Amino acid sequence: MSKEDVGITVSKNDDFSEWYTQVVLKAKLADYAPVKGLIVLRPDGYSIWESLRSTFDKKFAKNGIRNGFLPVLIPESLLGKEQKHFAGFNPEVFWVTHSGTNEVGDRLALRPTSETLAYTLYSKWIQSWRDLPLKINFWNTALRAEIKATKPFLRTSEFLWQEGHTVHTTQEEAEKEVMKILDIYKNTVEEELAIPVTTGKKSEKEKFVGAVYTTTMESIMPDGKALQMGTSHFLGQNFSKPFEVKFADKDNVEHFAWQTSWGVSWRLIGAMIMTHGDDQGLVLPPKVAPIQVVIVPIYRNDEGKTKVMPKVEEIKEKLELKNLRVHVDQREGLSPGYKFNDWEMKGVPIRIELGPKDIEKNSMVVAKRINREKDNLGFEDVEKIISILDEIQAQMFQNAKEQSVKNTLKVSDYSEFKLKIEEGGFLIAPWCGKLKCEEKIKEETGADIRVIPFGSENTEKKCLCCEEQSTVFPIFARGY
Amino acid sequence: MSKEDVGITVSKNDDFSEWYTQVVLKAKLADYAPVKGLIVLRPDGYSIWESLRSTFDKKFAKNGIRNGFLPVLIPESLLGKEQKHFAGFNPEVFWVTHSGTNEVGDRLALRPTSETLAYTLYSKWIQSWRDLPLKINFWNTALRAEIKATKPFLRTSEFLWQEGHTVHTTQEEAEKEVMKILDIYKNTVEEELAIPVTTGKKSEKEKFVGAVYTTTMESIMPDGKALQMGTSHFLGQNFSKPFEVKFADKDNVEHFAWQTSWGVSWRLIGAMIMTHGDDQGLVLPPKVAPIQVVIVPIYRNDEGKTKVMPKVEEIKEKLELKNLRVHVDQREGLSPGYKFNDWEMKGVPIRIELGPKDIEKNSMVVAKRINREKDNLGFEDVEKIISILDEIQAQMFQNAKEQSVKNTLKVSDYSEFKLKIEEGGFLIAPWCGKLKCEEKIKEETGADIRVIPFGSENTEKKCLCCEEQSTVFPIFARGY
Repeated sequence: MSKEDVGITVSKNDDFSEWYTQVVLKAKLADYAPVKGLIVLRPDGYSIWESLRSTFDKKFAKNGIRNGFLPVLIPESLLGKEQKHFAGFNPEVFWVTHSGTNEVGDRLALRPTSETLAYTLYSKWIQSWRDLPLKINFWNTALRAEIKATKPFLRTSEFLWQEGHTVHTTQEEAEKEVMKILDIYKNTVEEELAIPVTTGKKSEKEKFVGAVYTTTMESIMPDGKALQMGTSHFLGQNFSKPFEVKFADKDNVEHFAWQTSWGVSWRLIGAMIMTHGDDQGLVLPPKVAPIQVVIVPIYRNDEGKTKVMPKVEEIKEKLELKNLRVHVDQREGLSPGYKFNDWEMKGVPIRIELGPKDIEKNSMVVAKRINREKDNLGFEDVEKIISILDEIQAQMFQNAKEQSVKNTLKVSDYSEFKLKIEEGGFLIAPWCGKLKCEEKIKEETGADIRVIPFGSENTEKKCLCCEEQSTVFPIFARGY
Repeated sequence: MSKEDVGITVSKNDDFSEWYTQVVLKAKLADYAPVKGLIVLRPDGYSIWESLRSTFDKKFAKNGIRNGFLPVLIPESLLGKEQKHFAGFNPEVFWVTHSGTNEVGDRLALRPTSETLAYTLYSKWIQSWRDLPLKINFWNTALRAEIKATKPFLRTSEFLWQEGHTVHTTQEEAEKEVMKILDIYKNTVEEELAIPVTTGKKSEKEKFVGAVYTTTMESIMPDGKALQMGTSHFLGQNFSKPFEVKFADKDNVEHFAWQTSWGVSWRLIGAMIMTHGDDQGLVLPPKVAPIQVVIVPIYRNDEGKTKVMPKVEEIKEKLELKNLRVHVDQREGLSPGYKFNDWEMKGVPIRIELGPKDIEKNSMVVAKRINREKDNLGFEDVEKIISILDEIQAQMFQNAKEQSVKNTLKVSDYSEFKLKIEEGGFLIAPWCGKLKCEEKIKEETGADIRVIPFGSENTEKKCLCCEEQSTVFPIFARGY
């Protein structure tokens, strides 16, 4: 047995950060690449991303969004067009200066995001109102040099994401699109990954610099830190003006278009690991699990094998006919106990154990990863596995929701806030809306405004940190 | 009407190169990016790639291959490990030297291919025979600085491709994998893109430098130039030795593993455009067409609209129930003639025209893009569209096959060869197997050995360019 095969050696409660890294590596989701800051996805990790991509693609398509491809290289000269937007990325940009032994004239940036490139093209493609709305999504990677310690899925210099860029004739239509996308994000994360999110707006300080405003979805992780799960930006005409994204209206008058951009990244996978994992390793929501049911046949000799395997194959076929993803673990020379641990580490939602005695009893053992409970299930009830998977998915969301509620607190007194923030969690607190207070709170407590939930306007209290009345009750937290 | 809307202005026969570029741009498959050598895929272009990816994914999965993700940056120090392999790429490598304002210590190459990176990781992941075979495919891009004029899908500095990398315990198994992949490539290109290919081996001179041997599939384009459509390499232990990809066998003895790598790129889309397009523009094989059937309702007033549209919707629904991709063109203010031309330019396989008079006759007009013939089809026969699409797909392959046969010639006399090569095409000619002759032929005629077809061993003739007996009859051609 190699080192890699040994289980998770720390508890999630004792050393969350080390626990997380061990789960990622030992469940074989990802590994470190030879360059600092970069990771590689192994098939079990990439498969979760493929599952999310496929769900998003279906929802995007229903909403009239199609996919395209953009190159990774953006000339420096182009980036200057929207200075304010790009300034934020400057310190993190990777620069290509040579091709072969030749120096490149105009340095090339590895895309930190593609607004500048996409809108240069959009301005060519869009002439009239007939060309609108234009809604294109790009599944690619973004590159932003990370100086802090690498954290797979959460802090890497290259990350998988999708970036959507839409163009509209009216402000109203663009703003509706922003919300439609945020809704797709929310229901996908909640339904597929079983992670509850809170949606709302970012503060002026925390918004995407190029945006008029940024909507966001945020979640609270079990260690009490907040994670931004995705953002959908209303760009107004901030880009359409410098990039000349214009259209001739029906009356043939030219207007600047209204735009949105939005993205989620593989950090959703990081959130899933943190939210659901336990001391035995990964716990996968059934909907995105590469393997939903693993069958471990148990026998000691050929006689046992002959008795067990036909039934194993039969169960496998039945479940596959129902479109479940099933794997039979027939690895030789490994004990059932070893296999059980291995599949628990990998987070497979349901394990079926099946030995000669089970055959005699006409039933199998069904072990649920979520609570590690075992039950007997008669062979005639094999299709119940489907509803058990649904129950697991629902239960995982329920558990995460409870955890999130437990980690959310209303606080209106600043000294209490300072105390509570040390314990982590979402703190809902009154705020006057001024940058000064936001900055002061950040400086004194390390907490950002993560999200100003929709409908959280509230003038009943005094601001957490000044004498003025509150305007809203944002969620404050220390974040990833 | 903008410039973009004007049709193809040159004939495919008169100026093939200009014709090709116009089709790509005007059918809105792709556009040039702001950096020389780079292109962008618009939704209609990317959709074809998505279709191919989905077909390959299904076939790969059946063959036990799963997908993963590799970062785009490879440290220079790592590239030195397999000098011979990498030397070939050196002049084309993009180098990252800075992140923000900081100089990067070990320069970072943008991947021209990922052997070095993948095998560094494989050597960590593989310990025992239990870990093999390891078969991972990566859908990513490769970057190779192109100095020659950009040609969308054919010559670009960044291109979409897949690169598969497998590891095996035995040479035999690895070589079988090489052939399995080549077979998947061949049947996918022939069945989906309707392009006939010839498979075989590359010569020593033309093989991938890191490989023991390279298998390839080649096609002849209508302009007489050959196009390499995909390659599958047997790497032997050429990489497993320097990268220490080793496994402990059942008897616990360590061995170097046997490897393969293989790839196809978006140049398949280029081949599809060249093979099937005509003077009206793109002609799409039904299997990969983003829209398979476009319905153009024809009416002059609301009365006509009320008469026509319910039937249009009914036909659309019927076809969509059969999983066809259908689009209804209800754009206002554009004439039917304009719309017909537009959809012909975009290559949609079937156009249905439906006006008030058709309603009265209980039938619709069905126009086939492949030969621009129109037929009437009774409303009760709407499902025949499915078989018409199948016929079109088969006919397109048949046409391409005939074109390919016409462009293939057997020549055993060198002066005839020199004459014929000026007309283009595949020239099958006897060869002694020596590099000297291969180089001389290349120098004197511009023709490479494109492929040595399987089973083309033949000692009956003298070599095309020396006095020795032939060993094989390779296919020579000038190539892209």
